[in-house]
Amino acid sequence: MGTERIHNFNAGPAALPLPVLEEIQDSFLNFAGSGMSVMEISHRSKWFDDVINDAIERVQRILQLDGRFHVLFLQGGASMQFCMVPMNFLSKNDTADYVNTGTWSTKAIKEAQIQGKSIQVIASSEDQNFAYIPKNLQLTPNATYVHITSNNTIKGTQWSTFPDTGGIPIVSDMSSDIFSRPLDVDKFGLIYAGAQKNMGPAGVCLAIIREDLLARTPEEIPTMLRYSTYAQKNSMFNTPPCFAIYTVQLVLKWLEETIGGLDKMTALNQEKANLLYDYMDQSGFYKGTAEQESRSLMNVTFRLPSEDLEKKFVAEALKNGLGGLKGHRSVGGCRASIYNPTPLAAVSALVDFMKTFEQKYG
Amino acid sequence: MGTERIHNFNAGPAALPLPVLEEIQDSFLNFAGSGMSVMEISHRSKWFDDVINDAIERVQRILQLDGRFHVLFLQGGASMQFCMVPMNFLSKNDTADYVNTGTWSTKAIKEAQIQGKSIQVIASSEDQNFAYIPKNLQLTPNATYVHITSNNTIKGTQWSTFPDTGGIPIVSDMSSDIFSRPLDVDKFGLIYAGAQKNMGPAGVCLAIIREDLLARTPEEIPTMLRYSTYAQKNSMFNTPPCFAIYTVQLVLKWLEETIGGLDKMTALNQEKANLLYDYMDQSGFYKGTAEQESRSLMNVTFRLPSEDLEKKFVAEALKNGLGGLKGHRSVGGCRASIYNPTPLAAVSALVDFMKTFEQKYG
Repeated sequence: MGTERIHNFNAGPAALPLPVLEEIQDSFLNFAGSGMSVMEISHRSKWFDDVINDAIERVQRILQLDGRFHVLFLQGGASMQFCMVPMNFLSKNDTADYVNTGTWSTKAIKEAQIQGKSIQVIASSEDQNFAYIPKNLQLTPNATYVHITSNNTIKGTQWSTFPDTGGIPIVSDMSSDIFSRPLDVDKFGLIYAGAQKNMGPAGVCLAIIREDLLARTPEEIPTMLRYSTYAQKNSMFNTPPCFAIYTVQLVLKWLEETIGGLDKMTALNQEKANLLYDYMDQSGFYKGTAEQESRSLMNVTFRLPSEDLEKKFVAEALKNGLGGLKGHRSVGGCRASIYNPTPLAAVSALVDFMKTFEQKYG
Repeated sequence: MGTERIHNFNAGPAALPLPVLEEIQDSFLNFAGSGMSVMEISHRSKWFDDVINDAIERVQRILQLDGRFHVLFLQGGASMQFCMVPMNFLSKNDTADYVNTGTWSTKAIKEAQIQGKSIQVIASSEDQNFAYIPKNLQLTPNATYVHITSNNTIKGTQWSTFPDTGGIPIVSDMSSDIFSRPLDVDKFGLIYAGAQKNMGPAGVCLAIIREDLLARTPEEIPTMLRYSTYAQKNSMFNTPPCFAIYTVQLVLKWLEETIGGLDKMTALNQEKANLLYDYMDQSGFYKGTAEQESRSLMNVTFRLPSEDLEKKFVAEALKNGLGGLKGHRSVGGCRASIYNPTPLAAVSALVDFMKTFEQKYG
């Protein structure tokens, strides 16, 4: 603490790769020989065109997107998407399905309902406090889309595979696991993700949208709330959040060039999660809150024998250079968020600390 | 160029105070002893609370706001405000007045019309290509608000004083002149401003809203599009654009502590603008495009005898370390944006270059 960097297990805003932070810092007063900070260059300049276009190409390459998909950068986080999705896709006679797997799904459902849209909650794990991912979805045959939250940051669950929807496009909030594993893009109509977990700072939201869905937007929707506005103007109808997009570009470059691509990233994420879950499963002192087969590889939620011990755990961990381990204020307990940028060494240090703590208080 | 910083006359994103950039750079890997970058800290942490609360207090102090006003940070830029204003304030039987003074006013009007809201354009300077600010407004007696653009970045005009509206609240886009001069806040119901000109980087929009207007929002408006959401949650209903807010905080601190407050800032802005306009007025070679009494102190727009010379001017200026002097793509010509962060020395260097250029080609 103080002068040294800690291992950061924050749920979001979260850890960023150190080499990315160092690159930003090094060029912060003079970006690419422009004589200006990256925050001072025009979004209409060649410099920024290179930034945003490189970021888009990296998204396309990492997820192996074909020409049907547009890569967009928006503002307002995933929460703004909760309202934009039904606003853009559901006209008067349309209906959509939602799966409720926790806090964020619940919010997405609410934003459709506020607008008076026709939607069905076709499955929910609320009966078990959202500790699992529902199976065997009964889709509404004429649904325009089915909405899911691919990873549930607060509850520590994750869709390990995506459902077969018989051609109904999946709309997925992937804020907390995008770029953590490969995707079968054929299943998706829209993928959106706030950047502040797996790919950058707060303040930009990535949206990957299939061409045919762009045409659905009704006429009376304001310009800034239409996906087509962003698609037509390369996300620059107005001034985009340039610095956040630049950081995303560098994180994706780090994923491709330093980590070595999505397959390597996936293997590393699996290794990190295994290290933590395997230790917890044999301990008896730490108890995971998600059902085993629904466990998230990104957010590991667990309880200790008492709330008192949980408080002590979080405080002593911080003294040992391990930060952000408190569970979400709505559920309590502990949580280690181990997104893409979290190095294996950080997880290893956490497990070592957990062992010591268990020996002391177990 | 290359290794040295230039004088930056960009219209936005624009120059930032060098001491602010240096402070960000210095603490970029470890913010306030947190062991994390400012981009990695949680928005629910004490560290970020201190940032956003200090930013809000500085806004209140600089503009001498009383308890009626809420200071909010939103996303989507002023362009998102163009749609949020009528969405929140105009119910079925309400009507509002708009004054059209250029590109941004035109867009604000369009976003009200797209939503089918009742508005009147009560004055426009389109007849003279927006080279002046209209006088003697005829307000609609029962108007909910009157919307103006206080400074027109593209056309180089500015309201030198704000109209007496007989109690009808002014809603003003102040993206390009907020914090450049004192305001009589009693006239305003809502002031909004994208940060990327006078107060920070792109990616955050300041809104200052009067308490009584918060209650107007209809029920069916999505959560993220309601001003009250931001007022109730101290702008943290969801993850805010933390880094952009942090930069705004530092720019406002610089305004108060390094410049010495708003009065000093105002005097400096007047001095910078005078230096440039006085030289232009006696030159004959450079011709200002805005009518004299409507001239902007922030964006100085001018033409040279030919488009060819304008091109040469912009290119040679850049070779001399003066960047961003090209006029907006929609109007051509030249433009020097001299917002708060632009130092007098930069304007002085520009005038010296203009003299040399005039001697060479005039």
